[in-house]
Parts: sequence; C-alpha cells; structure tokens
Amino acid sequence: MSKLDHWQINVGELATGQALTIPVYQFTPENPSGPSVYIQANVHGAEVQGNAVIFQLMKQFEKAKLNSVVTLVPLANPMGINQKSGEFTLGRFDPITGVNWNREYYDHNLDLESWYDKHQSLDDRDLIAAYRQTLIASCQQRLQNSWGVNTGQRLATELQTLGHQADIVFDLHTGPKSCKHMYCPEYAIDAAQYFSIPYVLIMPNGFAGAMDEAMFCPWWRLSEFAATQGRQLDVAVNAFTLELASQERIDMDDAKIDADGILAYLSHKGVISETISPVKMARYGCQLENYKKFYAPHAGMIEYLAPLGETLRVGQPLLSLLRMDRYGTEDEYQNLNLDIECVPILHFASAAVHQGTELYKVMTDVFEL
Amino acid sequence: MSKLDHWQINVGELATGQALTIPVYQFTPENPSGPSVYIQANVHGAEVQGNAVIFQLMKQFEKAKLNSVVTLVPLANPMGINQKSGEFTLGRFDPITGVNWNREYYDHNLDLESWYDKHQSLDDRDLIAAYRQTLIASCQQRLQNSWGVNTGQRLATELQTLGHQADIVFDLHTGPKSCKHMYCPEYAIDAAQYFSIPYVLIMPNGFAGAMDEAMFCPWWRLSEFAATQGRQLDVAVNAFTLELASQERIDMDDAKIDADGILAYLSHKGVISETISPVKMARYGCQLENYKKFYAPHAGMIEYLAPLGETLRVGQPLLSLLRMDRYGTEDEYQNLNLDIECVPILHFASAAVHQGTELYKVMTDVFEL
Amino acid sequence: MSKLDHWQINVGELATGQALTIPVYQFTPENPSGPSVYIQANVHGAEVQGNAVIFQLMKQFEKAKLNSVVTLVPLANPMGINQKSGEFTLGRFDPITGVNWNREYYDHNLDLESWYDKHQSLDDRDLIAAYRQTLIASCQQRLQNSWGVNTGQRLATELQTLGHQADIVFDLHTGPKSCKHMYCPEYAIDAAQYFSIPYVLIMPNGFAGAMDEAMFCPWWRLSEFAATQGRQLDVAVNAFTLELASQERIDMDDAKIDADGILAYLSHKGVISETISPVKMARYGCQLENYKKFYAPHAGMIEYLAPLGETLRVGQPLLSLLRMDRYGTEDEYQNLNLDIECVPILHFASAAVHQGTELYKVMTDVFEL
Amino acid sequence: MSKLDHWQINVGELATGQALTIPVYQFTPENPSGPSVYIQANVHGAEVQGNAVIFQLMKQFEKAKLNSVVTLVPLANPMGINQKSGEFTLGRFDPITGVNWNREYYDHNLDLESWYDKHQSLDDRDLIAAYRQTLIASCQQRLQNSWGVNTGQRLATELQTLGHQADIVFDLHTGPKSCKHMYCPEYAIDAAQYFSIPYVLIMPNGFAGAMDEAMFCPWWRLSEFAATQGRQLDVAVNAFTLELASQERIDMDDAKIDADGILAYLSHKGVISETISPVKMARYGCQLENYKKFYAPHAGMIEYLAPLGETLRVGQPLLSLLRMDRYGTEDEYQNLNLDIECVPILHFASAAVHQGTELYKVMTDVFEL
Repeated sequence: MSKLDHWQINVGELATGQALTIPVYQFTPENPSGPSVYIQANVHGAEVQGNAVIFQLMKQFEKAKLNSVVTLVPLANPMGINQKSGEFTLGRFDPITGVNWNREYYDHNLDLESWYDKHQSLDDRDLIAAYRQTLIASCQQRLQNSWGVNTGQRLATELQTLGHQADIVFDLHTGPKSCKHMYCPEYAIDAAQYFSIPYVLIMPNGFAGAMDEAMFCPWWRLSEFAATQGRQLDVAVNAFTLELASQERIDMDDAKIDADGILAYLSHKGVISETISPVKMARYGCQLENYKKFYAPHAGMIEYLAPLGETLRVGQPLLSLLRMDRYGTEDEYQNLNLDIECVPILHFASAAVHQGTELYKVMTDVFEL
Repeated sequence: MSKLDHWQINVGELATGQALTIPVYQFTPENPSGPSVYIQANVHGAEVQGNAVIFQLMKQFEKAKLNSVVTLVPLANPMGINQKSGEFTLGRFDPITGVNWNREYYDHNLDLESWYDKHQSLDDRDLIAAYRQTLIASCQQRLQNSWGVNTGQRLATELQTLGHQADIVFDLHTGPKSCKHMYCPEYAIDAAQYFSIPYVLIMPNGFAGAMDEAMFCPWWRLSEFAATQGRQLDVAVNAFTLELASQERIDMDDAKIDADGILAYLSHKGVISETISPVKMARYGCQLENYKKFYAPHAGMIEYLAPLGETLRVGQPLLSLLRMDRYGTEDEYQNLNLDIECVPILHFASAAVHQGTELYKVMTDVFEL
Repeated sequence: MSKLDHWQINVGELATGQALTIPVYQFTPENPSGPSVYIQANVHGAEVQGNAVIFQLMKQFEKAKLNSVVTLVPLANPMGINQKSGEFTLGRFDPITGVNWNREYYDHNLDLESWYDKHQSLDDRDLIAAYRQTLIASCQQRLQNSWGVNTGQRLATELQTLGHQADIVFDLHTGPKSCKHMYCPEYAIDAAQYFSIPYVLIMPNGFAGAMDEAMFCPWWRLSEFAATQGRQLDVAVNAFTLELASQERIDMDDAKIDADGILAYLSHKGVISETISPVKMARYGCQLENYKKFYAPHAGMIEYLAPLGETLRVGQPLLSLLRMDRYGTEDEYQNLNLDIECVPILHFASAAVHQGTELYKVMTDVFEL
Repeated sequence: MSKLDHWQINVGELATGQALTIPVYQFTPENPSGPSVYIQANVHGAEVQGNAVIFQLMKQFEKAKLNSVVTLVPLANPMGINQKSGEFTLGRFDPITGVNWNREYYDHNLDLESWYDKHQSLDDRDLIAAYRQTLIASCQQRLQNSWGVNTGQRLATELQTLGHQADIVFDLHTGPKSCKHMYCPEYAIDAAQYFSIPYVLIMPNGFAGAMDEAMFCPWWRLSEFAATQGRQLDVAVNAFTLELASQERIDMDDAKIDADGILAYLSHKGVISETISPVKMARYGCQLENYKKFYAPHAGMIEYLAPLGETLRVGQPLLSLLRMDRYGTEDEYQNLNLDIECVPILHFASAAVHQGTELYKVMTDVFEL
C-alpha cells in the first residue's frame, strides 16, 4: 500500500500578511521503481476542472498498486483562483502586471556546452540526476535573488521546483469554451494515444514561459546537445498540458473519464501495476504552427455557430455577427466563414466582442494520429 | 405601412471626449391608435440576448400591420457593454462606483396629494397625459441639476424619459446561468399567459431603482391614491422585465421564440392587427417575497447539479462542493440540499466560489398560473 | 500594567478554502473602570493609514495607565485590501457584487416598543446591558441564517459584533485625495474638539449601512424612544468615522498626530489616566445635508486646482478641464467654478474622467465649532 | 505661417459598434525643409500628462516659425484611457489579454541582406525613403492579415504607421509615482542635453515591442548592416520616450516646462527657426542594464521613504514596511535598505503590497552626462 502525505507550500504573501499556500499531496509506494509523476491543476484561476480530475485520480491511487512517487498539486494558483471580477474569475494573468500566470516559468538558459563538458563522463542515469539537480538549484537561485523576484515568478518557480523532480509532468488546464485537446512535445507523440482526448497539438522545442515547456525543453536541449557530441540520450522527461474542455465548470463524471485516460498512460509507463487500456477513439494531430487564431474583423454580438471538435468545411458558417447599431444596413447580421477547412477547438467566452478579439482557435492541416 | 425612424441618444461622454450613444429605432404607423410600446435591452452589459430579440421583433414589425408607435432601444448601456475584464463583460455595475446599472432610475417621489388636488378635474385620459408630462419633466429636471448628475443616473434618466412616453414597457435582461423567467407587477398578472416564459415573479408596489419599477410604480401609486379619493383609475402603464435565459449568449432561433411571445402579448393589446396566439405551455407564479437566495455556506468548487426550471424535491441535491484543500477529510466532497421544495431559477456563473457567494436563486411556494 | 491579548477572527473563506482572518488586539487593565473602546481600520481596502494610526495608538497604550478594555482591529477587510486591479487596490466594494463594503452593516430594525415594554423596569445600567445583548444576539442570528449570508454581510456582521461590545467606537477611513475630516453624530458634537481634525460632518439619526451608523443609531433610537416614554436616557455609545487624509498612503509621523488626537479624546473620557490635551486649532462643522457632490459636467482631463481644506470663494477656480479632442474650439481648456462659497474636502483620484464622475465633495454653510 | 490640420484615425470598434478614434493634429509650413516630427501621448491610459505637454507645444507651434511637418497625437489609446476600475484608470494593459499596450508594436523582422541587395544602388536620401516605404508597407500588411489582427496590435500598428513617417519621434509617458526621466537610444545620447529631464536611460539596439524601439531599431539595424557592407549611414531616425513624472496627474505649468525642453531640442534640429536654449541643469545617465527593479521581499504596508530623483546612499532607508498582523514581533515595523548606492526613479502606486510587487526602479552606476 502506498502512503499518502500532505503538506502545503508557501508561494507568497498577500498585502494583509496572509500566506499564499498550495496543498501538495504525495503518494509514496514502499519501493518506488517506476518513473515519478507530478500533476498540477488550476494555474489559470478559472480553469478548475483539473482539480476534479486530481480528485478522481487520488481516489484511484488510493486503491491502485503504485510503483512510483506521485505528487499532486490542485489549486496551484491561489491568487488567480481567488481573484474575482464581477461573476467571473479573473485568473489568467496577474491583475497588477497583466502577465499570464503560465508565462512566468524560468528558462534556465544553461550553458550546455560547459555543463556537458563537466558531466560527460557520467553514465546516462547519473547524468540525468546531475542535470536534474542543476535545474532545481537554478530555480532556488532565482528565488533567492537579493533584489527579489516578482509575484508570478515566485509562484512559477516554486511549482517548477516540484515539477523538475518528476519524470512525467501534467499541467491541467482548460480552454475558455473548448473541446478537449492537449499539447504534446513532438518526441512524445506516442503518448497521445492513451488519453481520452481527441485533439493533439504537436509542439516543437521552443520556450515561451509555459510549464510544459519549462519541463521538457531543458531535457530536449540536453538530448539534442548530446547528439551533437555523438551520444544518444532519450529525452528524459515527458510533459503534457491537457485542456479539459471549458473553464468555470466542475463535472465530476467527466473528470473520471479524464482521470482514466491519464491512468491508461501511467499504466503504460509502469507507474501503476494494473493494466488500464485507453479508450478506443479517433485521435487527431496538428502541428502547433498550424493552430490558428481568428480575430474579430468587426465588433458586435456573436453567435458561435461552429461546433467545437468537429471539422468545419469551407463555406460552413463559423459564427454570426449581429450589429444592432447597423440595423437596416447590410452589416446588421451576417455569417462569417473561413476559407480553409479546419477544426474549431475553442472560442471566446463572451458574446459581445470588440474588433480584434481572439474569437476562435482552430486546427488546420489536421491528420489522424 | 409603418415608418421606421432611427436616431441616437447621447447618454454621456467618456474620458477621451467620445460620446456615449445609444441607437433608437421607432416604428410609426400612419394613424396610431393602439397603446405605445417601449422595449430596451442590454442595460446589464453581459446580458446581450435581448438585442437578438429586438432584431427578431423588428423583422416582424417591418411586415406587421402596426397600430401603435413602437420604440426599440438595443445596446442600451454602452459603458456596461464595452467594459471587459478578462474574457467577460463586467457589465452589471459601474466599474467606478460599484452601483448596479439597474438601480439608478429615478423615484420621482411626487407629492401625489398636491398633484392630484391640482389635476383632479381632468378626465381620465387628460389626467394620464398630465401625469406623464409631470414624470417626463421630473426626469429633465434631474438631468439639469446644477451640481451635475452621476454617470449611471444620467444613463438611467435618459432611458427613463423614453420609457415614460409609452404605455407598455419591456426591459430585456438575462440571468447569469438561468432559465427563462419574468418580473410582472401584481396588477398585470394576466399578461403573463402570453409570453413564452414559464416562470413569473409577481411584484408588489415597491421601488428599489429598477427600470420596471420606475415605469409602473408611479402609475400604481396614482391608481391607489385615486382610489382613496373615491375614483377608480386603472394602472395606465404595464411594465415587465423579461429574463431571457443566460448572459454572454446570442441565440437567434431562441430569440425568435421570445419575440413571438412578446408579439402574442402585443397582439392581445391591439398593438398589431394580426392575431398571434401564445404558446400553449404551463406557466408558474411565485410571489417576489418567496424568491430566495442561497449563499455558499463554504468556499470551494461547485458542480451545479439541480437543473434550472425544474422542481427540486426535498433531499435532491442542489449542488456538490469539492474542496481539494480538505482531501482526506469529510469535507473533501459533499452534496448540498435545501430543506424545502423549490424551483431553481438561476445560479452563479463561476464554479469557484468564496463563502457567502450567492449561488442560487430559487422560487418557493410556486403555483400554476 | 494592562495585558495585551492577540487573536484572529474568521470572517470568511476564499474559493481555495483559505480562511479570511483579521487580527484582533485587546488591551485589558487589571480593573477596568472606564468606557470600553473599539477601533477598526481599513474596511475600504485602499484606505490604509488607519493601520498606522492603530500602530501608534498601541505603542502609546503599552505605556499608558489604561482604565478600559481597548480592542483594536487593523486590516479589517482582507478581501478588500488584497484585491488589486492594476497598480491600485480595488477595495471600496465587493468585486463580485459591487456593494460598498461599508454599506453592509445590519439595521436590526428592532421593535423598540415591544422591547422597551419588556425591559423598562431595569435601571439605566441594566437596560443598556440588556440592549447591548439584544444587538449582539441579533448579529449572531443574522450570521446563522439557514440560507446563508453574503460575503460582505458576514464580514460586516462579525465586525459589528465586536463593535457593539464597546462604548466608544472609531472606524478609521480616508478619502480618495482628501484633507482630514470626520463624521460625528449630532448628539456627540462636543467630542469633535479633541481630535486633530479640522472638518466635521454632523450626522443626523439615519441608517444607510455604515459602521458608525450601525453603532450609534440603535442607541440614539433607544434614547429617543425612552424620551417618548418620559425617561431621560443619554445615548450610551459614541461612534465616529475619521477620514485620515488620502488613500494608498502610509505616513507614520502623521499617524502619530492622529493617534494623539484620539488619545486626547480618550483621556477626556477617562480611558487613560494621563491627561492629554487636544491640539489648539480651528475646527469647523457642516451639516451632512450641506455636504455636496460635484459631478463632471463634461468628460476630459482634470487639473484639480482648489486646495483641499481651504475656503474656496465664489469665482475662484475649482478645477480646469483639458479636452484635447476639442483643440481649436472654446472647449479645449476651461476653468470651472462653483457659484457658492465652500470648502473642498476631497476630490477624485484619477485625472481622466467620464462625464458624471464625482469630482469633488465640498462643505457648504460651514461654521466654526 | 504654418497650417493646422485636424482629423481622426480609426483604430478599432467597441462591442457596441462604436468607433475607437484618435485625434490627429498636423502643422504644415509652406515649404517644409526640416526633419519631420511625430509626438504621441497617453498610450498608457493613466499617463495623461503628455496631453498637457502636447497642448502647450501646440500653443507654441501656432506662433513659431516652423520648418517641418509636425504631427501630434494626444489621447492615443482610447480604450486604455476610458477603462476604469474603481477610482483609477486601468490603462497599462489590454483588460482582456493582459498584454501591455506598449508591447504590441511590430518588429518587421526584415531580411536586411536581401532588402539591401536590391536597394544598395540608391543614394542615402533615396535609400532612406525606400526603407521608410518598406516599413510603412509592412505595417499595412500586418493590418490586412486575413485572419485578423488583435485589438492592441491594431492600435499599435496604426500609431506605428504614423510614426514611421517622421524623422523625430516622441512617445510621452509617465511613471506610476515618478521623477522625470527619459529613454534615449545610445546613438542619440547628445539629444539628452536639450530636455528638461534630469535622468536618462541609455538604450541598446534591442526590440521588446515598445514604440521608441519600433521607431529606432529598424534604422539602427540598417545603419549597422550598411556598416558591414562598408557604407557609413547615420541612423536616420531619432526616437525618445519621455517619462513626465507621475500618472493620474495634469499640471499645466509643469507641462509648459517639458514643452519648452522639447522645443529646445526641436530648435537645435531646425524644426523651428527660433533659438530656444535648453535649461541649464545637471543631467545624469544610466545604462539600461543598470536600471534595477526592487521587489517586495515581504507583504505589508509601505511608506515610501526615499525621495525620487535623489541619490540614496548605502544605509539610507528606501522604505519602511508595516505589518500589523505581526504586531509584537520584530517584523511589525522595519526599514529596508539597498546595499548599493542608487537613484530611486519611480515607485509603486499603492501602499499595500503583496510579496513580489515591484516596489522601486532605481538607477545604479549613474554618471553625469
């Protein structure tokens, strides 16, 4: 039987002095032999469904034959979750700076040449362990900067420190109004067949500040650098962002479905001994560069017509635009289409939009995996 | 054929100097003989569906045999509609003062005794016309206060001035996540059978700043005062707030259904010559004092379980509350019930709530109309 | 020597489950003989200077010969204080509902006739004690409502419960950009001569939801009711709102000056044995009904010209209005005046204003106290 | 005499359909011979003082003997200026996306090698004219993207199009609470001696999305590229960001001082024929990399002690931190210092801060220019 520990990490202080804390749950089997796992949820404040998925996972882990240390961090951004503006959670960015909470992770920017030079004599396992220590130490250094570190960086770096300790990392998000989809680094594309998620964005080795990138980029770079040195080293860490449908929504039954998908992958990886088969379903891929944003060409009231997660053929309406200030003109009401076939994945949360609002994100050049 | 005029009213200026304007559309038949009508929508910025209903109504009015002047004001609160905070419209209250945009209408607080004393010799029709002029003049006086008038009061008083000119007034709103329902003054309860709306809140003669109250209270008071003077005078104005399901949603087909319901009432009132029958459906009433708010007894993540617009029996779950900070305790997940039978009408828009958030509004002591 | 106790009260829970707590400090002398005192600060989140005043008071109380129980509650609204929007504290109203945090206190609406009927045989001291218990019990009942209580009401009622236990109550606020002024109930106007505050608003016996009113109105009503029964009963509680200059400002030296003013009053009341004399300075009064708001007649950029806390004669400029959208017209730049003499007390915090923004609050019909 | 034209540019549409427009003023002399000038203000909504400076400049240009076309754009961001949150202007970032309005300008990322290859035969003047046309055409292309362009990019690109037409560009900003300072590209450091601004940040050739960078980087790159081709080409455009003290402040007299400083520079450049001498004052420089941010090491209430624009020696207090939740501990009140000498330039606008809030920006390694 695995042991369940619970503690809190401190990620900041609010103006009144109150500590910003995050609950951490950790399952530890007697003799861990499998890859370690880190799962966090709700870094964007309105994207709460991942908490329900963590709940369902924990209920399973309590019963499962676990081979690995599994660390779970729900409610991972207390400032974002607790920030309300009207009836909604203003949880996507720091309300003071505007910076997206999921763009504050740290690019260690290691001098790989010099690092590798010092550590190349290590065997793969020790090399990986040493590299991991370097990443964690780099996080700690960022937190101890004598000029301080800003609120979002502190949060991100504390989470990153936890994440760097694992071999498999999940960051649970949602879209605004969205069908299920996930971000998967190209080297780990085989993983996509295990989750209960039909649409997969395939990511290149680039860092723009997000958690998944912070987890896999350093290892992908190491792997690529080793290759230039004639050493074949698999990317040691797998990291995924799952987008579990829409924000501001808790659905415990649907959470069970996504928990089962994650368990199917973890079963495949040997994290649990039980064999859990993935759901049989079609899964589709799209290169990240083919994931396109459609911005409102005009302001107005939007009826979002295109069903999410279904192919939209050329000529089928994406949305309609109602402009009651233009009644009696040809602008009063019109359908808008795209000129290429696509799969709409998510759309904006509000029905009244300014010109230039990002209305839809759609996959183009979609292929079956 | 009726004539369609279009103009804009000016309801303020933004800091840059830009005028805040609202489009007004007015249908005028050749020889108006029926009661005049005023319909506005979107005073709360996120409650956009009324604009679609006005669109559908106008398309019908263009073809109908109209007997009355009908004035339609979509997009009635440009500041509220255009105010975004994150992906949502922060449109319920003035972002500077916090005051609900629908609580700024003016209670003329007329000295009815002295007013009636001066006008009692008039016959009913002239009395009503004189009273209407008094109300409109009182609005104008408020707008011309030498110390100024605040932003929300200016908007409300401009709309109120338009509304006072009509015999039948509709204010089109929505709930947050809501089934269709309406507010109806007690004296006009017979009107409720015409609309495509199953749930009706029956209002007493009280003024708390809302548009419908601003429209009917002065007339109800006049009627009641006349009664004390031994004169039977029907309440001359009918005013209703329709809550057209959920906010941040445009649905043109559903708008057609609600437009037809309004037309059935207007047909009954002789505003249009065509006979339009109301939809056959069950309609239910509830006294306003029995419309209850349920506040979150604890913070947490909410799954809203009770379907809106259906009877919830004692013991059936209203919602579930997930508290991932309490995993492993009895608080981790629980269902909450109410101890009386009710019909949940609307619930909060966000799934992550503080203690004390208004989660549900429910009708109790519901009866069939 | 008095004893200093410290505890926290729980006033709510944030969505993550985190408790909203407020620190309470209480000085208790060995044999309390003087009137008890309650002082709170920072119910409006941006109005922080009261915390510094409480700090300076506590430093004095530690040394003073204290005769009374003194309870001090800094940081009295954690949700308001911690709510940021851009670089400022959005702390005046609940960000979800828009309701002013200082309008949520409870009007017990006691049936005084029946209450007095039951308690009239008590002597003054016992009557007061019984009434106090009734008020506190009424607060507890509000908190235990089976349908819940909203976030702001919970906070207010918890603070109100603490306040009802004292004979002297201070609620420490600030204006936006403001000179020092205070609100004083008419019956306690003699108190105004003790504070280091030049401008005094004299309040009638009315309740609009604010803390000071919640403290003194029930007692004033009791006193007035007793008078109708032929019994002379002084108002048993004194309550004041002090407005300690501008928001978003901590000034420890200025806090010492205001702490000394409060101590001068407490010395007069026998709360401390030391004799502390009030500062010699002119003090001015104004009836609350003569405290006027000036709303922006047009939008634009404001230079606030009139010095706060000084008499502005007719014809002297209150402000100038720059409208760069109107350059080349007579509207491009103009001074605005008022047509009566007044003392500007506070002005709006921002320099770019919409039409209808409350720009200034000014005292008119000012007299020396 | 120069001619003054006035028109408006359209930079977007709000949800209600209302156009977002910006006023443009342009002075044109009969025979323009000097370098053209572009001046904009108020891209950050709370930073209004630049409008007053433009007002004062225009009053001077009306009387001056002008040799150049001068284009002035006050109120350059209507959405930012009109966005209020509580009593303040939430004008630093797009309230929907969180993106800083001054980080949306376009990096054309020209393939300089291929461009130069095609145009190298042109003489300097024609080369510059051709390059300018390329930049403007690139802006237009961005605006005409068939998938749309987001709200902030549209605004920025419209302003950028205007700016690219000028030889001298000023972007007028302010800090939060700030002394006057400016950003100056290294190659144009001699310009700094003309303005009435004591502190100068010296910028390298890097692009992070700001207006000044968008103006000078393409030209600096061209100059550097030409140098690699053996051609000496001065950087053709000078661009500066002036930070005119604090936000939410209009001061017409101070605006005159800054207008005079700008005129002294324009006089030196031959834009006006009149000789205007710069104010004699000490001016100090600091490399951008030595401009440091100090983040709150703990939460609490801040008294900002260090005067802005004055040298702060090691050991002198930067600020004090009051923590009323810690009264009675050593954390209750403390001064914080920096361990190097610096000049504090600006500080945060609020006095109640979370851990990690950017409290101060200070210049280090300051030298006299």
